[in-house]
Amino acid sequence: MLRIGLIGAGYWGPNLARVLNQSRRTHFSAVCDIDARNVEKITTQYPAVRGFFTVRELLDSGVDAVAIATPISTHFELAKQALEAGKHVLVEKPLAHESVLCEQLVELAERKRLTLMTGHTFIFSPPVIKVKELIDAGELGDLYYMSLSRVNLGLYQKDVDVIWDLAVHDISILLYWLDAMPTEARAFGRACVQKDKNDVAFLWLRFPSGLVANIEISWLSPQKMRRSMIVGSKRMVVYDDIEPSDKVKIYDRGVMVHQPESFGEFQLTYRMGDMVAPNLRNIEPLLTEVEHFAECAETGAIPMTNGAFATRVVRVLEAAVGSVREEPAVRTGVTLA
Amino acid sequence: MLRIGLIGAGYWGPNLARVLNQSRRTHFSAVCDIDARNVEKITTQYPAVRGFFTVRELLDSGVDAVAIATPISTHFELAKQALEAGKHVLVEKPLAHESVLCEQLVELAERKRLTLMTGHTFIFSPPVIKVKELIDAGELGDLYYMSLSRVNLGLYQKDVDVIWDLAVHDISILLYWLDAMPTEARAFGRACVQKDKNDVAFLWLRFPSGLVANIEISWLSPQKMRRSMIVGSKRMVVYDDIEPSDKVKIYDRGVMVHQPESFGEFQLTYRMGDMVAPNLRNIEPLLTEVEHFAECAETGAIPMTNGAFATRVVRVLEAAVGSVREEPAVRTGVTLA
Amino acid sequence: MLRIGLIGAGYWGPNLARVLNQSRRTHFSAVCDIDARNVEKITTQYPAVRGFFTVRELLDSGVDAVAIATPISTHFELAKQALEAGKHVLVEKPLAHESVLCEQLVELAERKRLTLMTGHTFIFSPPVIKVKELIDAGELGDLYYMSLSRVNLGLYQKDVDVIWDLAVHDISILLYWLDAMPTEARAFGRACVQKDKNDVAFLWLRFPSGLVANIEISWLSPQKMRRSMIVGSKRMVVYDDIEPSDKVKIYDRGVMVHQPESFGEFQLTYRMGDMVAPNLRNIEPLLTEVEHFAECAETGAIPMTNGAFATRVVRVLEAAVGSVREEPAVRTGVTLA
Amino acid sequence: MLRIGLIGAGYWGPNLARVLNQSRRTHFSAVCDIDARNVEKITTQYPAVRGFFTVRELLDSGVDAVAIATPISTHFELAKQALEAGKHVLVEKPLAHESVLCEQLVELAERKRLTLMTGHTFIFSPPVIKVKELIDAGELGDLYYMSLSRVNLGLYQKDVDVIWDLAVHDISILLYWLDAMPTEARAFGRACVQKDKNDVAFLWLRFPSGLVANIEISWLSPQKMRRSMIVGSKRMVVYDDIEPSDKVKIYDRGVMVHQPESFGEFQLTYRMGDMVAPNLRNIEPLLTEVEHFAECAETGAIPMTNGAFATRVVRVLEAAVGSVREEPAVRTGVTLA
Repeated sequence: MLRIGLIGAGYWGPNLARVLNQSRRTHFSAVCDIDARNVEKITTQYPAVRGFFTVRELLDSGVDAVAIATPISTHFELAKQALEAGKHVLVEKPLAHESVLCEQLVELAERKRLTLMTGHTFIFSPPVIKVKELIDAGELGDLYYMSLSRVNLGLYQKDVDVIWDLAVHDISILLYWLDAMPTEARAFGRACVQKDKNDVAFLWLRFPSGLVANIEISWLSPQKMRRSMIVGSKRMVVYDDIEPSDKVKIYDRGVMVHQPESFGEFQLTYRMGDMVAPNLRNIEPLLTEVEHFAECAETGAIPMTNGAFATRVVRVLEAAVGSVREEPAVRTGVTLA
Repeated sequence: MLRIGLIGAGYWGPNLARVLNQSRRTHFSAVCDIDARNVEKITTQYPAVRGFFTVRELLDSGVDAVAIATPISTHFELAKQALEAGKHVLVEKPLAHESVLCEQLVELAERKRLTLMTGHTFIFSPPVIKVKELIDAGELGDLYYMSLSRVNLGLYQKDVDVIWDLAVHDISILLYWLDAMPTEARAFGRACVQKDKNDVAFLWLRFPSGLVANIEISWLSPQKMRRSMIVGSKRMVVYDDIEPSDKVKIYDRGVMVHQPESFGEFQLTYRMGDMVAPNLRNIEPLLTEVEHFAECAETGAIPMTNGAFATRVVRVLEAAVGSVREEPAVRTGVTLA
Repeated sequence: MLRIGLIGAGYWGPNLARVLNQSRRTHFSAVCDIDARNVEKITTQYPAVRGFFTVRELLDSGVDAVAIATPISTHFELAKQALEAGKHVLVEKPLAHESVLCEQLVELAERKRLTLMTGHTFIFSPPVIKVKELIDAGELGDLYYMSLSRVNLGLYQKDVDVIWDLAVHDISILLYWLDAMPTEARAFGRACVQKDKNDVAFLWLRFPSGLVANIEISWLSPQKMRRSMIVGSKRMVVYDDIEPSDKVKIYDRGVMVHQPESFGEFQLTYRMGDMVAPNLRNIEPLLTEVEHFAECAETGAIPMTNGAFATRVVRVLEAAVGSVREEPAVRTGVTLA
Repeated sequence: MLRIGLIGAGYWGPNLARVLNQSRRTHFSAVCDIDARNVEKITTQYPAVRGFFTVRELLDSGVDAVAIATPISTHFELAKQALEAGKHVLVEKPLAHESVLCEQLVELAERKRLTLMTGHTFIFSPPVIKVKELIDAGELGDLYYMSLSRVNLGLYQKDVDVIWDLAVHDISILLYWLDAMPTEARAFGRACVQKDKNDVAFLWLRFPSGLVANIEISWLSPQKMRRSMIVGSKRMVVYDDIEPSDKVKIYDRGVMVHQPESFGEFQLTYRMGDMVAPNLRNIEPLLTEVEHFAECAETGAIPMTNGAFATRVVRVLEAAVGSVREEPAVRTGVTLA
């Protein structure tokens, strides 16, 4: 059983604590946080867990691995320190705030022969896995486009904008589904409430196959949405994570082009078949994630969301965010106003 | 009572015919179409209407005005011919397939002192008018952003792509609501089913006030959506045209920034108030549109959706579509794959 | 082609007129109504139709059949008069306001060898037919229970209460699905707005197989509902007629009882399978109904919703309504207050 | 701070344990259960709590009060034993399986001057309280009728049927809202899966004011519903507990009867106003319930859901269930089949 310590017990840490305690593959033995109250909450709830106020102490407490749930800007230094101390590392997403730093962590983990994994939890969620299976089995045909919305009111993050906070989920899902990197990435957003921090954004991605994707993210939406539309030549899928049941709906619908017989025009016909909402396993993604990490750390297997995967996610984020900065405020040569 | 003739009785024409027949401000007296079956259907259903096979005959039949419901590429020539014959003109949207042609029609109508109006029907729809009233009364505060989705499966148009077919609605709604032109317009799309004709697209607009808007349009969506989110600093609105009732929902919600007392960080608080779905009048937008046209033709008043308005809609379409063509397929300097 | 006359052109008549005009199996030749304006509206819209102010004139105008869309209390006399004149008869539902009168009409039609059919339109609607097919094919297993809701705000009828106005739909659907008569029928309601006229009611039915059904009907509901739940031992179905698509949802779910091995308790397990929303034909039930009537009148085939069927519907209505009158206002022997 | 012990740590007990631990008004000091594993789970998670295997030991461990979360058939004996030992008692609903037993407990608690409260949690839930406020303030006008649905697939209870398991919630809500007892109560149900245990039922209640209520409950529904419709002469309310937000919707709609001027008919007009979904406090009902119990036990105040209230709930259950047994399977004098 993997002895594991938790670094960071603020907003997200308690969720990891619960699962580390629940899993039979992990022995949750230590926690550290710079805020004593956060440490105390965990040690009160899990009396067998030892509390520390420095990472150094936690690393020296006999753990085999650490889970890092601290602000994004600290991920790199903490993960590096843990790897250098010979610990397997599970870092919350994104792996680091720059892709070059991600690459350094990947290299370090490889050199040390340690498991480096990032907490892209959605990759372990039944509806996301179901869509992946449909794509890989060819059930959807050629993929035309995807449109993903992840909006709600709040929760503003202190150190990152809405792209780094929310789009990271959708990008990880897209890279998992498509097993490919986009050739083009753009973003368009606005800092509405606080200067210099986008709280609404729209991202465009184009993949080598021709598939295009749109991602809509917002901290400023009156209704919560967690909705993905995946449109293929054979079937179309709506994955709505808000739905209490029937989260994945597969529509056997499409448009077919008929060759003109001689000189005529192309004819289109619409195919309207059944809709199926497959029954999905009722498992908790975070628990699956932690058990996958424990298994990889013990066997040396490569995690689904390993450092290389997490680095690609950050690279797409950087490319999209980069496009925001580069674009002129007004397009040259087009006078609209 | 305005004597009016209908040019084009194919897909959309029969709807106009029904309303021209129903209105007490119009006398529906003539119809023409190149397809004899289309003419016959109308004259059978409305025996008082005279049927013709050429526009010339219809224009000479004693009408005061015409309503044009033909393919977009023919709008300019037909509207021009009618104006030159001294008729008031109601053209289906968009006014013409190029903004320079729109401008020519505007100029011609002014010179002839005739009413030129475009059938942007949504401008006459109760939920769209309600949102306009909320914006103008300052109920929403500063406008932050808008996100509009108009997607369904089919109906593919023969002469235009999805942007010209569907985004024209959302752009007309935005220009009406904001009374301003965007300084920036972009589009990103894909021709999935037929080569050279986008069937899915995403548009970005930025307005002088800072407001950003995203428009999602598709002929390839398994579920139909007609949904607009309008986010302001004071209130947020969701306008969902699919809902059988409660199409407009006003959320008294927002995020407030509090100045730090001395050196501290900015603090955010969330305001969570009631949601109100105002009761909306139960009128038919198309009938209102036709009666507004008749009134303007008779009194010389300027239509809400006059030629100048319709020209601005086409100019935004052109700018957005133009951006699709100009962009390189792969962004220089960013190697994602 | 069946020459057919319409008796009654008030609220529902115009819908029948449209379909009689549209069908290729019927020749819509005459209309009569005591209100001259109603006659004029029809003859203006369908100039080939002759207008009358008495039923006598219409019956003498050379029609083969009549469609009756008048207040319920007049159905019997008008249908009788038409049958006696040798015309096939399609009457709006319910066939008559008393089952003994229904029986007289059935007998008369048989004696005259004429088609007598009632306009239970839902029996011709694709979702209702789909549920019937599922039941008959054994897809749902043993039927446990059904719960049907048909509520909205208005439209109050002048001559009947909400049970005769709305429950007639659900009872006809149940009799069609089950092909059996209930052994027990009760109703419980209230006249809220107008004295002596129930505007909300709940009906209970028990069928020989053991199946129980609950019907909720109301003219006083803020939200419109048209929802049926059909629960069987193998599968469960929700048929929601308000849904724009996916009106029928089949859930492959159930509860299974396991025999105890020796002395233990019965064990229950839940089966959770996929949900399927079958694609349904896009036809208009009213048109199908009219064409079915025309076919039966011409061939002598027995209509789905013939007089005998319609009589059974009225008999269930009478039994349920009768129970309302008979019950004491306060149950003897139970002092609750 | 009230020292409190938990009796029963099976299905529902752990929820109470969490809240007893969380509240600052209670000191969760002891737990007992006949199953050692249940005790161990609680003492492991809350190390300060002492575990026992008999109620006697728990009562002797220095607690001021107990919370009872055991099978319904044991409520009476356990509550009696605790009251006799001088402890305040919070019992899960229903208070006991017979109203005469409820009365004995009420009498005993009064004699001993102890607090006796039942865990009708919905009485402490913000949407239920909001509807109560609307009724009491006269916002809904005269109450016409209510229709409540509480259905889902499972969870079958071992010792009671669906009426005792689910309808108990709706009856407690109705008695709280109306502050009156029904003069009539009936039930109609079926034991589909297991003999002798209803798993679907429909209840009818009539109150002295004339208001009628229908309750639909089922363990055999493919879709989960928690929906109440409350219809008054001034306004109508839909309370849907499944909705993630906007659980209460107030419709400013109604039907008005106009006196005939002289001899004419009564005229009806429909009033269609706005819909408002009030913002509701975000509190946990179970925590409020426990803190209310602690406050009453300490101050002697009368709990909202005291023994007398809980007794009335059971009396309505008994009357409704009694009606099931008494009714003949086939109504005399009506031969439907």
